[in-house]
Amino acid sequence: MASCTICLPALMMLVLDLNTVESVWPLPQKLAISEERYPLSPTHFNFYYGEDQASIMKDCSLLDSAFTRYFPLIFPDLTSGLETFSQLVQQEEDGTYFINKTEIEDFPSFQYRGILLDTSRHFLPLKAILNTLDAMAYSKFNVFHWHIVDDPSFPYQSRTFPDLSSKGAYHPMSHIYTQSDVRRVLTHARLRGIRVIPEFDSPGHTQSWGKGQPNLLTPCYKGSSPSGTFGPINPASALSYIFMSQFLKEVTSVFPDPYFHLGGDEVNFSCWQSNPDVRAFMQKMGFGKDYTKLESFYMENIVNITSNLNKTSIVWQDVFDYHERIPKDTILHIWKGLPAQYKAETSRMTKAGHRVLLGAPWYINHIAYGQDWRISYNVQPLNFSGTEEQKKLVIGGEVSMWGEYVDATNLSPRLWPRACAAAERLWSDESQTRSAEAAFPRLQAFRCSLLRRGVRAEPLSPGHCSDEYRGI
Amino acid sequence: MASCTICLPALMMLVLDLNTVESVWPLPQKLAISEERYPLSPTHFNFYYGEDQASIMKDCSLLDSAFTRYFPLIFPDLTSGLETFSQLVQQEEDGTYFINKTEIEDFPSFQYRGILLDTSRHFLPLKAILNTLDAMAYSKFNVFHWHIVDDPSFPYQSRTFPDLSSKGAYHPMSHIYTQSDVRRVLTHARLRGIRVIPEFDSPGHTQSWGKGQPNLLTPCYKGSSPSGTFGPINPASALSYIFMSQFLKEVTSVFPDPYFHLGGDEVNFSCWQSNPDVRAFMQKMGFGKDYTKLESFYMENIVNITSNLNKTSIVWQDVFDYHERIPKDTILHIWKGLPAQYKAETSRMTKAGHRVLLGAPWYINHIAYGQDWRISYNVQPLNFSGTEEQKKLVIGGEVSMWGEYVDATNLSPRLWPRACAAAERLWSDESQTRSAEAAFPRLQAFRCSLLRRGVRAEPLSPGHCSDEYRGI
Repeated sequence: MASCTICLPALMMLVLDLNTVESVWPLPQKLAISEERYPLSPTHFNFYYGEDQASIMKDCSLLDSAFTRYFPLIFPDLTSGLETFSQLVQQEEDGTYFINKTEIEDFPSFQYRGILLDTSRHFLPLKAILNTLDAMAYSKFNVFHWHIVDDPSFPYQSRTFPDLSSKGAYHPMSHIYTQSDVRRVLTHARLRGIRVIPEFDSPGHTQSWGKGQPNLLTPCYKGSSPSGTFGPINPASALSYIFMSQFLKEVTSVFPDPYFHLGGDEVNFSCWQSNPDVRAFMQKMGFGKDYTKLESFYMENIVNITSNLNKTSIVWQDVFDYHERIPKDTILHIWKGLPAQYKAETSRMTKAGHRVLLGAPWYINHIAYGQDWRISYNVQPLNFSGTEEQKKLVIGGEVSMWGEYVDATNLSPRLWPRACAAAERLWSDESQTRSAEAAFPRLQAFRCSLLRRGVRAEPLSPGHCSDEYRGI
Repeated sequence: MASCTICLPALMMLVLDLNTVESVWPLPQKLAISEERYPLSPTHFNFYYGEDQASIMKDCSLLDSAFTRYFPLIFPDLTSGLETFSQLVQQEEDGTYFINKTEIEDFPSFQYRGILLDTSRHFLPLKAILNTLDAMAYSKFNVFHWHIVDDPSFPYQSRTFPDLSSKGAYHPMSHIYTQSDVRRVLTHARLRGIRVIPEFDSPGHTQSWGKGQPNLLTPCYKGSSPSGTFGPINPASALSYIFMSQFLKEVTSVFPDPYFHLGGDEVNFSCWQSNPDVRAFMQKMGFGKDYTKLESFYMENIVNITSNLNKTSIVWQDVFDYHERIPKDTILHIWKGLPAQYKAETSRMTKAGHRVLLGAPWYINHIAYGQDWRISYNVQPLNFSGTEEQKKLVIGGEVSMWGEYVDATNLSPRLWPRACAAAERLWSDESQTRSAEAAFPRLQAFRCSLLRRGVRAEPLSPGHCSDEYRGI
């Protein structure tokens, strides 16, 4: 992203305007509109770097590729961060393009604007992920949280432990992400200014890991003998930590982002409790009967392994709830509860000096009939009791699309434009974007432009777009 | 459908079987499975008419085209009323096809198994409609209820009144159904054993009609002067009935099915009440202040016009609720209320000797998180208090996919496989299909076969299909 903060000033040189109702989504911080209109001739159109940036800009491959990508988006009937600009260019009935004079000053309200996709409960073909990255860029999301593995399947093809996917994926060939698949995702994202933060959730949510990695999971007991079923990763076995450090060594090198998501949510203690070795370990460690201490012990080790690999850890809130003495630089991901609950949680966590990522209000895999985007839009991430210092610790938020009932057949229409509500909340100035009612026509216009760009975004109300989705 | 009841016995000649769990959806009335397995060689495979039918069958174009269509569905990696048979053919790991010996005896429990699509609130491109017809045939739906026009838009291009679509459609060119579009839908449906029953809903739900047909709608008044807004079709003006008979003359000839849906739902009386001419008419007719009498008067005229055009009318329940003395052969479409309510309504209507169509429990445009197909599956259409004679009057049911929040971007995944629950309830023997739990694995298998056939059917739970949807 560093390169992007260098590039962005160049865009600020563009002096534009808009004749319709403000039709940019998410809303820029400042958008000053005049009546003055300039015609645009695609044949003579060109992007340039601002004089002052010219020197630094010479080798901004990120911006150069964006120029190339956005040109056809700006002038659709020929064959462009430039997103804002592309949304300002309009076309006359006669086909000529124009743009009105506008002064734009823009920057995001929150640095972390993420979307979570779950590729374990259902496998998502590469195409679906790449298409999602395109749509994310259109609404200025900048983090793809890749919840890549979980209980149901393990689609990540590991170099070090190939059995994890050959035995743990839904299918060893057709339902996996090869190293080159991952590289394609990383490149596609990078060119769109999107970070890719993978999640390898443990010690729970690891049933699929056990298929390719024997002796990793805890054998559950029925009375005095193993029941044949397995629980979370075995925190009492040294082998677990040896495996995790080898595995994390690989994946932290495959995914270059400085952040890394370690999960740590929803650990079921019953299997641990049933296992004599785990109980013996509890005693030896003096944890008594408190299994939250055991999970904390496990997570502490995993977080340390990860920080030795020079990554900043993100963990689900459970880890903090169990054990407040985790390293200060660990980012806490809030996912539980109603507004009252996640606000209290945010206060506690920021008070403890942790950076916080707000997920709870945007679990949009949960669907309801009608315009539920308004609920997402009305979220106020900083509306919790805390000092100014505490508020600064909220690095942003994340929209989650968990995969229980979602795969490539319905991903796009469930995600778009519903996720756009959070996109604006996380980018724009809250004081200028309080009213969902006022945002509605602009969101409808944006939904139509998503369609024009090939994103299967579902309708928000009766009506139409000039370019409807023509696929099936 | 007559031709089809002639053709079907030929299929009964097929003697087949199934080695897996019964994998046919909807479940046939009788399916007797043996272990005996026959290999199938696509190159030597052929359909034939049973000896006894051979004579009548000579010119069954419907079945002949089905033979052609189903061949690639049965043998996908080559390039077939045959639906049941196609679901029984399986493939070995090595690619060879086989089928096990099975005796099938089958017939639908209800003659009317419909799906409603709404092409007014959102325009559905032809491709989306044709694809839906394909999927309907796969699950043995046999009626496409085309709610073609409504308040928001009028996409039907009329020969007699072209202004209706040129002024009432979302777009006069890109958002209409031409006569040839309609013919394509009719042919595509006929070849799949599907009837097309159009709905031209009146007197309410007609805002879009008014744009292309002046003096049709009721001018609403504010005090003593017109407010500039319009209400339902003007039941007090002779012009309304002249227009309707001309228009119905056209559309009843365009759509050959003997049934025709006249709507009649949700008429708002406030505009009628505000209009002095309507009030004068009420007085003249001696209706007093009872506007339900006025609507009944209008509907009675429309039903008579329609029966003179040799069509059987279907109307929404409102018409019966207002006015029980409508022609006995009019079919009543129940859409309101919770089970207790629609059961009571079914009793009343059948007691009055009317044929009934059950829509209320299957408004699946209403979505909820999770496996809401189970709710549709547990519906018992004949579980209402009434005599055997009354039960015979329930001709079937209909799944509705209203268009407020649905267009081509999300139609398929919202409809499939959720609509399949009603498909089985309407086709199969209720006593054999009581348990949603027992049906679940079969429905999942069927959903995978829908995917294989190009229907974007959404997932029912975590898991995978060997052929995932690969589009975006």
